[in-house]
Amino acid sequence: MGKRIVIALGGNALGKNLPEQMKAVKITARAIVDLIEEGNEVVICHGNGPQVGMIQNAMAELTRSDPQKYTPCPLSVCVAMSQGYIGYDLQNAMREEMLDRGILKGAATVLTQVEVDPEDPAFLYPTKPIGPFMTEEEARAMKEKYGLNIMEDAGRGWRWVVASPEPKGIVEIDTIRSLVETDHVVVACGGGGIPVFRTDGHHLKGAAAVIDKDFAAAVLAKQLDADLLIILTAVEKVAIHFGKPDQQDLDTLTAKETEKYIEAGEFAPGSMLPKVKAALSFAESAPGRKTLITLLEKARDGINGRTGTVITS
Amino acid sequence: MGKRIVIALGGNALGKNLPEQMKAVKITARAIVDLIEEGNEVVICHGNGPQVGMIQNAMAELTRSDPQKYTPCPLSVCVAMSQGYIGYDLQNAMREEMLDRGILKGAATVLTQVEVDPEDPAFLYPTKPIGPFMTEEEARAMKEKYGLNIMEDAGRGWRWVVASPEPKGIVEIDTIRSLVETDHVVVACGGGGIPVFRTDGHHLKGAAAVIDKDFAAAVLAKQLDADLLIILTAVEKVAIHFGKPDQQDLDTLTAKETEKYIEAGEFAPGSMLPKVKAALSFAESAPGRKTLITLLEKARDGINGRTGTVITS
Repeated sequence: MGKRIVIALGGNALGKNLPEQMKAVKITARAIVDLIEEGNEVVICHGNGPQVGMIQNAMAELTRSDPQKYTPCPLSVCVAMSQGYIGYDLQNAMREEMLDRGILKGAATVLTQVEVDPEDPAFLYPTKPIGPFMTEEEARAMKEKYGLNIMEDAGRGWRWVVASPEPKGIVEIDTIRSLVETDHVVVACGGGGIPVFRTDGHHLKGAAAVIDKDFAAAVLAKQLDADLLIILTAVEKVAIHFGKPDQQDLDTLTAKETEKYIEAGEFAPGSMLPKVKAALSFAESAPGRKTLITLLEKARDGINGRTGTVITS
Repeated sequence: MGKRIVIALGGNALGKNLPEQMKAVKITARAIVDLIEEGNEVVICHGNGPQVGMIQNAMAELTRSDPQKYTPCPLSVCVAMSQGYIGYDLQNAMREEMLDRGILKGAATVLTQVEVDPEDPAFLYPTKPIGPFMTEEEARAMKEKYGLNIMEDAGRGWRWVVASPEPKGIVEIDTIRSLVETDHVVVACGGGGIPVFRTDGHHLKGAAAVIDKDFAAAVLAKQLDADLLIILTAVEKVAIHFGKPDQQDLDTLTAKETEKYIEAGEFAPGSMLPKVKAALSFAESAPGRKTLITLLEKARDGINGRTGTVITS
């Protein structure tokens, strides 16, 4: 009776640093185990903006401290490290919450690579903010120091910005499927996955990018033939006229409506727009598939039809 | 007809830094795929001395750069990151080498925690060198700077030194077994595993330690009911009177002989001694189990009885 569900966790599910993460994952695990308790299979995908930024910062500091000894660390390697860093806390929180409730499932983190197209125009126009928020002055100093691109992020401060190409496929999809089918809760495509592109047929090379985790989760959900994609974020429902007096929260969104609202500029780029696009790409991919967008703590209510916004084809 | 084999990779299989690692893993993958081509199931365990040292160094530099923003990163978290860092390159090298030979097995890295005893006396006496080799002067400056323990490492220079408790069990053992049984080559227990101990029954807490990868591999081999443990290192055979005019290379070692030689001080602590002890602990654990110690490039010859040292019960 259960569904196969892919969950994309928003930034608030993990916090911005290590102490925040250790607390946040416990709350996150409770919300997810609620879904498992109802008989659903769950695969968890998560972002890594603050974490990969921190790791890249650390590796850059290391190189600066001794450039003879330490070559710069590619961004793809920083993403791989962030999967270890986050997966460790997240799988443990899941494991503990399940054991606390007497659920004997495995909890596992699969190091995941996600294929991108080296010709993706995203490589020319970096748009994905990572790392800590900075003042404009700090940001300009960082740009000077490390040669990274910077941008102002939605009125919240300045951040580093990297390319965010579209995910094409999950390299370790069979591994993830094997674990789902042997009764595991799987953490996969962490940080949107380690971005790689193909060279010489089947060889893979790391790309200097960070893939959007909602798009990666949509591809994962398609490839796993999931019933439902859940995108957990900071609002309970998707809205039009967002933040205005006539804001209207939506219970459902058809493909047609979604496209119309996207065209009308209803969803903020870098915020709700990519979520809605990812939601739609899964909902449209085969009959019966749908996406739920809601708050972490409303996930159970959402899958039971009591809240959130459901995107259908 | 194939065997189930757990392989513990020595430091030379990975190199000491990122450029070395990218080259080394290709050579390592060739040697391991030789064993897979002969029909064996393979699980790979690896060390992380230089890598976890580098990551710890980087995280320490980050904290120093802005102590208000970044709390110190626990060693267990650095180990988790090192599993991502190394697993990414290693599983890719395995994947490519298998595809080059037309072998359609999955290659996967499982983030692995290994349980230790919080009362292990190892926590009182740090013995495990990690990170780069330093001059005595550099080491003393590091000790001053980060408050880490340091020691002289077998005449090769000074290094940081951390606790190395005995591994008791692999938390993710069922995950690793599921993947082995669904035709995967698994990278597990990277860096000896993320060291954790139990609190309140089943809750886990990270330990400030690095587990010896040969001991972790021995526990992994026992729990997976492997036929063979292979410890790959810098010598073709275990020797007594090592480095002396009457050095004697050994083709086989029984439990009795091994214990006799250990007692006689034939094996260097921090070098061949832990390997021989790990080898023996697996060979003694059940009838029919044995351990092979040899060079990476001699692994295939070794399992076919043409070289290396075989430790039996």
